[in-house]
Amino acid sequence: MSAAGLSPSHPVQVLDEFGTPRDVHVAGERPLTLYVDKREIVTLMTLGSAPELLALGYLRNQGFVKTIGSILSVQVDWKSDSVAVTASSGVDNWEGKLAHRTVTTGCEGTVFGSLMEKLDEIRLPPVVLRQTEIYHTLQRVNEYNEVYRRAGAVHGCTLCRGDDIEIFVEDVGRHNAADAISGHMWLEGLPGGGRIFYTTGRLTSEMVIKVAMMGIPILVSRSGVTWQGIDLARRMGVTLIARAKGRHFLVYHSARHALFDAIPQARPGHRAEANDGD
Amino acid sequence: MSAAGLSPSHPVQVLDEFGTPRDVHVAGERPLTLYVDKREIVTLMTLGSAPELLALGYLRNQGFVKTIGSILSVQVDWKSDSVAVTASSGVDNWEGKLAHRTVTTGCEGTVFGSLMEKLDEIRLPPVVLRQTEIYHTLQRVNEYNEVYRRAGAVHGCTLCRGDDIEIFVEDVGRHNAADAISGHMWLEGLPGGGRIFYTTGRLTSEMVIKVAMMGIPILVSRSGVTWQGIDLARRMGVTLIARAKGRHFLVYHSARHALFDAIPQARPGHRAEANDGD
Repeated sequence: MSAAGLSPSHPVQVLDEFGTPRDVHVAGERPLTLYVDKREIVTLMTLGSAPELLALGYLRNQGFVKTIGSILSVQVDWKSDSVAVTASSGVDNWEGKLAHRTVTTGCEGTVFGSLMEKLDEIRLPPVVLRQTEIYHTLQRVNEYNEVYRRAGAVHGCTLCRGDDIEIFVEDVGRHNAADAISGHMWLEGLPGGGRIFYTTGRLTSEMVIKVAMMGIPILVSRSGVTWQGIDLARRMGVTLIARAKGRHFLVYHSARHALFDAIPQARPGHRAEANDGD
Repeated sequence: MSAAGLSPSHPVQVLDEFGTPRDVHVAGERPLTLYVDKREIVTLMTLGSAPELLALGYLRNQGFVKTIGSILSVQVDWKSDSVAVTASSGVDNWEGKLAHRTVTTGCEGTVFGSLMEKLDEIRLPPVVLRQTEIYHTLQRVNEYNEVYRRAGAVHGCTLCRGDDIEIFVEDVGRHNAADAISGHMWLEGLPGGGRIFYTTGRLTSEMVIKVAMMGIPILVSRSGVTWQGIDLARRMGVTLIARAKGRHFLVYHSARHALFDAIPQARPGHRAEANDGD
């Protein structure tokens, strides 16, 4: 999980609106080309904080490799901006997979397409969502988001269980951070049950699909949702909470299972729906 | 540019942190499959506000079609979630293009790859950046962002010239909105010179590349930048302004050409570098 020699943020000098020079940090993004058994699969733009997990999660979520047991090695080489994976069983149907991906390119589209049929098989068991649990999660994730606080322009994803932050990953794209968490769960053999997935990014269809595929029943975001995100959450039984910041949040789905056991005392008036967290 | 029968935002009922039901709006995203001469190219997830321009801009930015003159028709059909383009000269080297795209999948990666070599040929002429011009732009774009204000979870891109907003496009992904603006410029034969490109989204390498390819010398964002975005802006001569909101902004590149002709009177203290605008 190391990224030796790789700095996630870089200092730069800028001018502010007063014409005054200021030293700030900006996030780095670099290409990482993924090879499986010496065959090039994809080039991902990444912050580079968890390249091995990103590679594993990408292969898992795209359906390139079925079980973690068939992964023999994962080797990152930042000199050539590459990660080489070897798999004992290889990859079935290369051409089909690569051809298929060409029709699903795009920020939201990489897990779309043939996966949609499989989604109908996913139905997460109902869970009880406790307000105290949401607040615990929000308090804990607040301690993370290091690159974001320093440089901005990144998204953070977190896997939480009770008061534990099991893993926190930041990346330039929320889908990369989600893939890395998926890779971690795969590697450690973690089930999704009893866990909460928190992200700073929007809950689009892609995010909901990834979280449902990980078997995680509760998805919390600081940002907003799309209509398709809600629709998929309903179909697959994912509890969806968005606009979660401080004491505020909105439950977009599975409201029937929500237990409001920590209703804030003061009611400072409703906030605007759309905020800056996208 | 119409999206008849297509609603960009949907009403949903949610529960807030007090357990109180609230009616809010969320942005829609739907798949749009692009065909050229009956051949399937890609499926994009889009808000659907400017599907024809999105299709044109995508084909332009991906290098599928060289000149707008060879586009014979663009037909959107929301019943089948598709847009069909016919081109007089067809597309050269289909296999090469489709195969190439498979290695550049990902949120940031769709214009990466072989385009990188061409970028060295791009060198925009130096421009003078006036603070008054930035403030005019920020004031004008504030009047737009309709779906964002209502539903959040979208990004807006705007092409400005003086006090004119030439086009404003919102989409679930900033790259789609940028592609649609590129399509508009292509269709109308607009050069990039003398224009400002404003986006609510982050200035990653992909955004800087697209704006440079459109020939637009000034790129303004409400959000942050990545280090590679700055690096590319330096190489291609794009003036880069980020964290632009209200009277605040930071000039990340081309500071030597900045004219501070509207320095704010009050100095309310420096803000934190990283904010929520990502």
